[in-house]
Amino acid sequence: MDDLLARVERHVRAHLDEDIGRIQTLIRQPSISSENRGIRETATMLYNDFQALGCREARIFETPGHPIVYGHLDAGAPKTLIAYFMYDTEAILEDQPWIAPPLAGNLVDFPPFGRCIVGRGAINTKGPMGAFLNAARAIQAVGGPLPVNLKFVAEGEEELGSWNLGEFIRKNATMLAADALLFPMPRQEADGRVTVALGSRRGVIFELECNGELWGRGPAKFGIHSGNRSLVDSPVSRLIEAVASMATDNGNRVLIDGFYDGALPPDAEQNELLDRLATQWNEEAFRGKLGVHGLIDGLHGRAALQRLMFTPELNIRGFHGGDVRPGDVTVSMAVLPHRAVAKMSVSLVPNMNKEDVANKIRAHLDRHGYRDVKMTLRPGTTTEPGSWGRVSVKDDIVAALLATYERFGVAPEIWPISPGGWPGHLFQKYLGTSLVAGGVGHGGRAHSPNEYLVVDGNDRVKGLVDCEVGFAATMQAFARR
Amino acid sequence: MDDLLARVERHVRAHLDEDIGRIQTLIRQPSISSENRGIRETATMLYNDFQALGCREARIFETPGHPIVYGHLDAGAPKTLIAYFMYDTEAILEDQPWIAPPLAGNLVDFPPFGRCIVGRGAINTKGPMGAFLNAARAIQAVGGPLPVNLKFVAEGEEELGSWNLGEFIRKNATMLAADALLFPMPRQEADGRVTVALGSRRGVIFELECNGELWGRGPAKFGIHSGNRSLVDSPVSRLIEAVASMATDNGNRVLIDGFYDGALPPDAEQNELLDRLATQWNEEAFRGKLGVHGLIDGLHGRAALQRLMFTPELNIRGFHGGDVRPGDVTVSMAVLPHRAVAKMSVSLVPNMNKEDVANKIRAHLDRHGYRDVKMTLRPGTTTEPGSWGRVSVKDDIVAALLATYERFGVAPEIWPISPGGWPGHLFQKYLGTSLVAGGVGHGGRAHSPNEYLVVDGNDRVKGLVDCEVGFAATMQAFARR
Repeated sequence: MDDLLARVERHVRAHLDEDIGRIQTLIRQPSISSENRGIRETATMLYNDFQALGCREARIFETPGHPIVYGHLDAGAPKTLIAYFMYDTEAILEDQPWIAPPLAGNLVDFPPFGRCIVGRGAINTKGPMGAFLNAARAIQAVGGPLPVNLKFVAEGEEELGSWNLGEFIRKNATMLAADALLFPMPRQEADGRVTVALGSRRGVIFELECNGELWGRGPAKFGIHSGNRSLVDSPVSRLIEAVASMATDNGNRVLIDGFYDGALPPDAEQNELLDRLATQWNEEAFRGKLGVHGLIDGLHGRAALQRLMFTPELNIRGFHGGDVRPGDVTVSMAVLPHRAVAKMSVSLVPNMNKEDVANKIRAHLDRHGYRDVKMTLRPGTTTEPGSWGRVSVKDDIVAALLATYERFGVAPEIWPISPGGWPGHLFQKYLGTSLVAGGVGHGGRAHSPNEYLVVDGNDRVKGLVDCEVGFAATMQAFARR
Repeated sequence: MDDLLARVERHVRAHLDEDIGRIQTLIRQPSISSENRGIRETATMLYNDFQALGCREARIFETPGHPIVYGHLDAGAPKTLIAYFMYDTEAILEDQPWIAPPLAGNLVDFPPFGRCIVGRGAINTKGPMGAFLNAARAIQAVGGPLPVNLKFVAEGEEELGSWNLGEFIRKNATMLAADALLFPMPRQEADGRVTVALGSRRGVIFELECNGELWGRGPAKFGIHSGNRSLVDSPVSRLIEAVASMATDNGNRVLIDGFYDGALPPDAEQNELLDRLATQWNEEAFRGKLGVHGLIDGLHGRAALQRLMFTPELNIRGFHGGDVRPGDVTVSMAVLPHRAVAKMSVSLVPNMNKEDVANKIRAHLDRHGYRDVKMTLRPGTTTEPGSWGRVSVKDDIVAALLATYERFGVAPEIWPISPGGWPGHLFQKYLGTSLVAGGVGHGGRAHSPNEYLVVDGNDRVKGLVDCEVGFAATMQAFARR
């Protein structure tokens, strides 16, 4: 192993408890963007971290939403890498069972991985962010030098759709100039395989509401006694019918006119990647990780992979109306509710366009008589530049990541498109940088209960030490290309 | 005015603050049956009240659910009246705006009614129960005698569907023997009119659940990242389609085979009552009270009244799945939920049968491929004796109530069927007693925010003094028939 990486590894091993502690500190500071909970405190915490690391410039940039924290760690190196961070997390839903308090970041023995950090943000993405900062700190501690200059960009609205990030990049393109972007993210699966998903994409987040006031029928302002239902209309029933009109086959086949029009089928390179991936993909592990017995339409193998990456979806994130109290059938209020809300999203694939899709949804509702159903788009949906970005498997930052995996003996699967959304393409748009998300190590349950990041590891997945050394290795490999 | 009633009125006027205070005490003791909150404490409170009133026998009867409190106030009178009480209330939903704390029972100036008691249970039915007990206390305080013996039966599960009340009556028929039943309930509308709804009815309360475990598709145990939606099924979408399949026209036309089969059209007497009612009914006041701009199908007058009383309904009390957090579109979690629940009910009209309706719903789901959708009936649904009861406008207790209204100069509208549910028919079934709900005075917003009971009153609606004197008048009128 290179001298630098060997020194880093010794240092991390000797100081692992401190590294774990820094990740726990991040998790213990809530930063739930959708509830505006702890956002400002977390931004300040990161600002202090960037300063302590010796960033020449560290600054909290205000936006119309949550602030963006920037730090420039100038090592005098020829190349500069943007480390994209998100410091916000998803919420903690009440009906989700956690084995440890979600904001404690406790170390829990999680067979077969040994000790893991469990908590909201453990993998998505306070754990990886903390590990990357630990790696930079370790490089400095052992005398470095840092192989690349680092520009940290930490946003607090990733879970809201990054709706102020694009404008920030556009306005600060000179300051942000870099050679590539890395989203530090341990991507090993539980069985040790690792995936490299090329590019990034984003979707349309929206909400539908039906209420008696807008409709002019049903209770206008408050829920009323259900004994009136025979003569009074139900906004909940109306919204259920409106949502049901948008798709069939359990929501899997969208009936909105032109919904699938923009979706490009895989091109030659993507087909080749899909062919290869189909021979590597462990469907059972995929289902096991998510706790899913069977996939849509009973799909398997290549067909399943192609559907996951190349078919846009219409998802219902939540639906609520009237009595939403948990409990058994006795927890049931005799009410005719006055409103209902569907929280929805559409994931887009190339070459689809957000504004176009949003317009088609609105047109569908209007055409089916649901003019009164209020559709609210997430702010910024129609002004944001682009919904997806593509990169080549040959780009330097991708190659550096692949070299890292090779160094750790991990064979990568190349996914032509990232199924999950992240905003890398916004940087590509304004800075021209290539981008990739990755790292060795393992975590899981993003957006679910018992979100975790592996600390110990086993013979298949790497632990936190290798995760941090791996980030150093990727910096070094990128510097050498 | 009769000497007794004059004495009672003087007494109530002189002690009104105490009477208000007793009602407030009841409201301040929560008793939300669906949350098992404060039930036992409220039962004990009532037991003490019954004893303090001089009940020869007072007892808390255990049931498989919440206890029933019984008290027998023997006045040595020839006739005995059951006063049916419910000591439980509905819940307080979080999305409902209250002008005063719902468990404080504050006196609030509520134009045009003057002071009102505002709080959960103010009208449904701690206010009326307290007023009736105040009336009995006042009769005793002025030397009485009580015109009738009273048997108090106070259940704590009315809002759950009274599922242990039938068995209690069956087992204790001898103890409960009586000449009639009164459900004390100020029934004036805001414009002073009063309705007498004949008989009682009840419905089927049930819950539908779809989850990935039962379905064998979609996330089985917990919500997962929505980035997987293109390949993983959605239990929320499935339940929305299942519920949508059960009805059309915004839920107003039920598509379940045979759903309307048992429903009897109005008979000759009921048609006559409907004809007369149509000339009296103030539709505008009805809509105003409920905050409803327009009724189903734009119905008016007799057609509206007939639909309200003679058409069974399929109501969605609540629907929840995934992210049910309140807030704007930014409060939206990128989750593919693992389960969804629809809380539903069917109100029945004569001659429908609960078990039959429940079976038809299940058969509908099965026939449409929703065998995995779990349907849970409220306990007791299929074992309870009957779903509705009819009484004649000529029955003594109805006549006594009508005489009371006449005494107070209030012209009654006779409704052939009660739109709202209550369990009077269970007493009719086992004891053969006629039954009626009524009283002078006014309150409103049952099951809604800002539930209230009028204390002062105005030139149209009676206040609490008349409400209590009115209960004494009904006892007296019943005794004299």
